[in-house]
Amino acid sequence: MRTRFHQGLDQLKQKLLTMGGMAEQAVERAVEAYRRRDAELCRLVFEGEPAINIMEREIDELALDLLAMQQPMAIDLRFITAVMKINADLERVGDQAVNIVQRAQHSLELPEVELPADIPRMAGLARDMVRRALQSFIDARPEAAEEVLKMDDLVDNMNRDIHAAMVDHMKRVPDALQQALDALLIARNLERVADHATNIAEDVIFWIKGADVRHHFGMNTVQP
Amino acid sequence: MRTRFHQGLDQLKQKLLTMGGMAEQAVERAVEAYRRRDAELCRLVFEGEPAINIMEREIDELALDLLAMQQPMAIDLRFITAVMKINADLERVGDQAVNIVQRAQHSLELPEVELPADIPRMAGLARDMVRRALQSFIDARPEAAEEVLKMDDLVDNMNRDIHAAMVDHMKRVPDALQQALDALLIARNLERVADHATNIAEDVIFWIKGADVRHHFGMNTVQP
Repeated sequence: MRTRFHQGLDQLKQKLLTMGGMAEQAVERAVEAYRRRDAELCRLVFEGEPAINIMEREIDELALDLLAMQQPMAIDLRFITAVMKINADLERVGDQAVNIVQRAQHSLELPEVELPADIPRMAGLARDMVRRALQSFIDARPEAAEEVLKMDDLVDNMNRDIHAAMVDHMKRVPDALQQALDALLIARNLERVADHATNIAEDVIFWIKGADVRHHFGMNTVQP
Repeated sequence: MRTRFHQGLDQLKQKLLTMGGMAEQAVERAVEAYRRRDAELCRLVFEGEPAINIMEREIDELALDLLAMQQPMAIDLRFITAVMKINADLERVGDQAVNIVQRAQHSLELPEVELPADIPRMAGLARDMVRRALQSFIDARPEAAEEVLKMDDLVDNMNRDIHAAMVDHMKRVPDALQQALDALLIARNLERVADHATNIAEDVIFWIKGADVRHHFGMNTVQP
């Protein structure tokens, strides 16, 4: 028989997964809106943001309720507080989606141009990192989180390449300066999405590994 | 006589203030390095980053220790978990300082140009927001946090103005394109610093007010 506390933990895990799905979908839609120059899809991303913020608060409240309900074991304590940290990162992934859509909207007002920047590919990788980081937490697999950290280098390189290509394009084709700048800024937003995935992965390694390798959590553990 | 738990809470507060000071100083130095084209100051910001990351982990561990030490009262529970959230925001303020210094280093390699962008003024405002947001938390004054939220509009406007001015400059003075882009990107970094201050202020309002106005923290509080 499951206790009320453990049912709450399951509920917390489920809500965090839902939150992850919402944030990831927002990024997917934002980039799709940019690629297809789709004003309707832009609107959907803007309209979806409050739901992500509400979910963030719900998860925090549930986490607080669980912490208050009983004296959690050290491993549960680390789990619950890690949820709160990851929750904040997912909310900011949603913020990045909004930033991307703002650039997409701006681009819509400008003539369409061809740019040597594969934004959808970069977006796919960044979203994959978010999904994997969250899954590594749910599965409590720090080794899967390590994989996410490696992917971050790829995204960083893509961002650097797009940055250089767009600066070069701005110089060569001044008429497309604003469009190239929008692509450069969207690449930076995606790099930040990947950073949030990296934060989540680092939390998984720190929180989950820490819970495994340490035997107690007395005050002395924080002293040098 | 203070209990060990309350001494721990005081220590947590002190460490968070130290962390805030470190993050704020990193932003100050980064912008100063950019303004003065000072490679040595750039180096100092890079070298200071690990200390901020270590402090973040120390604060998290201390917070976990306090949560594990005894069944905290609801108000202490909210305080400790708010510290963990704010801690993450301050660490990311430090990350923004590193991003700024990367642009500053890049600018150093380019000829010096005059740009119509008052980065130091924007930086002063963003740093002020971080300091005030943290102070509103330490003082448990949600009304001071509300003031921080209002300041964010000012910073957003500055960012928009600098963005527009730099795009205009890039078009008119193609030779200074990269320098103008660096200024535009630094303004965005500062806008993100202000966003972190806003996050902290929102947490203060949510966590502290929530602790005051609500009488219990049972599971039902998260149900719609």
